Amino acid sequence: MSRVLVVGSVALDSVETPYGSQEEILGGSATYASVSASFFTPVNLVGVVGTDFPKAYLNLLKKRNIDLEGLEVRKGETFRWKGRYGYDLNVAFTLVTELNVFEQFNPRLPEKYCGLSHVFLANIDPDLQLSVLKQLNHPQFVALDSMGFWIEKKKRSLLQLLKKVDLALLNDQEARMLTGNTNLAKAGKELIRLGPQMVLIKKGEHGVLFFTKDFVFSTPAYLLETIKDPTGAGDTFAGGFMGYLAKGKKQDVASIRKAIIYGSVMASFSVEDFGLNRLLTLKSSDIQKRFNEFKLFTRF
Amino acid sequence: MSRVLVVGSVALDSVETPYGSQEEILGGSATYASVSASFFTPVNLVGVVGTDFPKAYLNLLKKRNIDLEGLEVRKGETFRWKGRYGYDLNVAFTLVTELNVFEQFNPRLPEKYCGLSHVFLANIDPDLQLSVLKQLNHPQFVALDSMGFWIEKKKRSLLQLLKKVDLALLNDQEARMLTGNTNLAKAGKELIRLGPQMVLIKKGEHGVLFFTKDFVFSTPAYLLETIKDPTGAGDTFAGGFMGYLAKGKKQDVASIRKAIIYGSVMASFSVEDFGLNRLLTLKSSDIQKRFNEFKLFTRF
Repeated sequence: MSRVLVVGSVALDSVETPYGSQEEILGGSATYASVSASFFTPVNLVGVVGTDFPKAYLNLLKKRNIDLEGLEVRKGETFRWKGRYGYDLNVAFTLVTELNVFEQFNPRLPEKYCGLSHVFLANIDPDLQLSVLKQLNHPQFVALDSMGFWIEKKKRSLLQLLKKVDLALLNDQEARMLTGNTNLAKAGKELIRLGPQMVLIKKGEHGVLFFTKDFVFSTPAYLLETIKDPTGAGDTFAGGFMGYLAKGKKQDVASIRKAIIYGSVMASFSVEDFGLNRLLTLKSSDIQKRFNEFKLFTRF
Repeated sequence: MSRVLVVGSVALDSVETPYGSQEEILGGSATYASVSASFFTPVNLVGVVGTDFPKAYLNLLKKRNIDLEGLEVRKGETFRWKGRYGYDLNVAFTLVTELNVFEQFNPRLPEKYCGLSHVFLANIDPDLQLSVLKQLNHPQFVALDSMGFWIEKKKRSLLQLLKKVDLALLNDQEARMLTGNTNLAKAGKELIRLGPQMVLIKKGEHGVLFFTKDFVFSTPAYLLETIKDPTGAGDTFAGGFMGYLAKGKKQDVASIRKAIIYGSVMASFSVEDFGLNRLLTLKSSDIQKRFNEFKLFTRF
């Protein structure tokens, strides 16, 4: 069993959806990914928060076996994001982004983190993601997330990164934007040509497409009657994927396919309630049960 | 092996897509479904064409083992449809609809058709679909397609039909419209409550969702680099589904799941070229090969 290193944002989110709203709840890409991965294996988190960050949230993460030596507490306020979703929960409208201490984020890995094998670079400035890679001794599996903003502003750094990571995770719009291909089959192929061994295209409620040089794999998303808050679904997916891989330490095709289903399972739980509410009440048996339901849901 | 009875439109289509255009090619819901089903089992077609309908098209259908005793040739012009697709091939813009002889279509089953067991009621006026059901002696499996127009204009007849058929095929928008539920998990459940044992929601490039009282099944669409013309994909799906079921004569869960994959396989071929071009050059071995690829594409 390997640990998972997660580098990304830790934030206080305010979210409005047609099903309710929440103020200043624990959020951020690194938070969702870490909590999700922690159901499979211990996690080390690298991020930054302000001195206003609630102790209760720190304790909550520690209780989930997430090592916080890499979580810098910097004078100032924590990163805040405020967003709204309409009935099409695939589309988030950002109302407010206050970067605060996150603006000066410069990830420094504690020495004991540098030897970790499984790394999830959640969405931050690609130059910072590159600097994290330089601090690692010999990572075995690195997964990368990004966003449209960086594809526009820092495409060169992103292209450099793609040559260094094992897996790139993008949503459908980002995949189209980065490759200039509207067809996702072509976009996936093109992304593989750009460097990573594996590419995963996230299609929200329509599931995922996964590409390697040798094969394509796809799964629908688990069908839900209740989707309250899609925030963090992609990071929760990535956390589940990485956690499962790190736990088993294998990278064969069968393990990768299962990791994708475990990622989908974790994301499906996450969106059932606001913020981390559902993940924090989840039991291992719930995860296994839904994984088995996924088989019945897709097998022919 | 049972035959499949298909009742619906036979048309001359003119189609424009970003990949080219075609004028007055063979189309119509019954045509696509019949040709698709004919790869699995013999087909009987009920429809109407005008005296202008090209003999070559009649011969083409006959060569595919499609019985045309039920295809009425009526004085006047054949139904014509002209449509355009943009880069989002999920959305068709209808430019011209000339119903012509199809406006007076009143399906009369030749006596030898009345005992058929497997029936696909392609999209026509629900009152006509009801009249077809009355002409059948003891159908074993009836599948129904419809469209938004009838949900608006003839909802009562459609609700009556739903109580009499085994399977309702709808696209996602139609399912939402008919149930008033935007969430497809809830819409599927609600549709089952309205009568049919099985409901299949078509999501185009995102695959299908299939509901019974007891389980939900889903498959992504086969991933294609080339989609030239999505016209008839839903009917091609239905034809493949019905053809496979009728051939095997079994209706157990495993057969139904396989039938859904065969339907998806047939639809994936259909959209690769304009009109029926791809289906008409297809070999059984192509179908089996893509069915096997579907396993690799989705299995974990």
